Amino acid sequence: MRRRKSDDPIHHALTIFGDAWSLLIVRDLMFHEARTWSDFASAEEGIATNVLADRLSRLQAHGLIRLERTLAGRSYRLTHKGLALLPLMLELMAWSEKYDRHSSVDRALVRRFRKDRERVLYEHRARLLGVRGSPASAGTSRRP
Amino acid sequence: MRRRKSDDPIHHALTIFGDAWSLLIVRDLMFHEARTWSDFASAEEGIATNVLADRLSRLQAHGLIRLERTLAGRSYRLTHKGLALLPLMLELMAWSEKYDRHSSVDRALVRRFRKDRERVLYEHRARLLGVRGSPASAGTSRRP
Repeated sequence: MRRRKSDDPIHHALTIFGDAWSLLIVRDLMFHEARTWSDFASAEEGIATNVLADRLSRLQAHGLIRLERTLAGRSYRLTHKGLALLPLMLELMAWSEKYDRHSSVDRALVRRFRKDRERVLYEHRARLLGVRGSPASAGTSRRP
Repeated sequence: MRRRKSDDPIHHALTIFGDAWSLLIVRDLMFHEARTWSDFASAEEGIATNVLADRLSRLQAHGLIRLERTLAGRSYRLTHKGLALLPLMLELMAWSEKYDRHSSVDRALVRRFRKDRERVLYEHRARLLGVRGSPASAGTSRRP
């Protein structure tokens, strides 16, 4: 069982986003078009403002999100590193779909994810990266 | 952004195991052959005994692990519901492999997971379920 704490890959990942609030922020960026402080603050789970500030700056420090300052104000975006959590988030969703009958999960999405995983990942990546064009080109233009 | 808290699939999953300690316990059951209280307590991360007791009973209450009482003492095992977190844990590992160069992650495993996902999932499920036989039969005898 002994292993060096800092070396363990799962421990490493969890140090960065291993709490519910961080993952809920990533979820909101990924699936709910959240961009601004008030988008995150208005999520139904009701995150406290000090916790929100802490998690946003931690996610930023670890390079999962970046802050853009525009005329309209501060806006957060997922970086490629943050975007790389997409398969994990979809697995979370699929797990809930299977084991929580009361969940409002998008069952059609989960079904497609199970059946045609790469296509669904491609479509969501394209959406999040703001890539134009048809998902039909997935085979040749897939982004890392 | 508004949605009912209890209904969101990701929030649901995170209520159950959305803290680092719970996921580290699942990791130890999955990849480090941890079974007993002292196995978990001796993990390098140094979980406090009250936290360990709380997370074990929470994971048990949600049906992710079960407690077996044998002559040798109390032993924990993943249930099918807990085992279903395997893809998620491997995604966590793959994410760390990509973004943490200091990680002690098993790079050969991650490479195989990326290349032949179903086979790797099958092999780990078979190991965790104590299934005998060759992974070559993955195509016909895959467990749910």
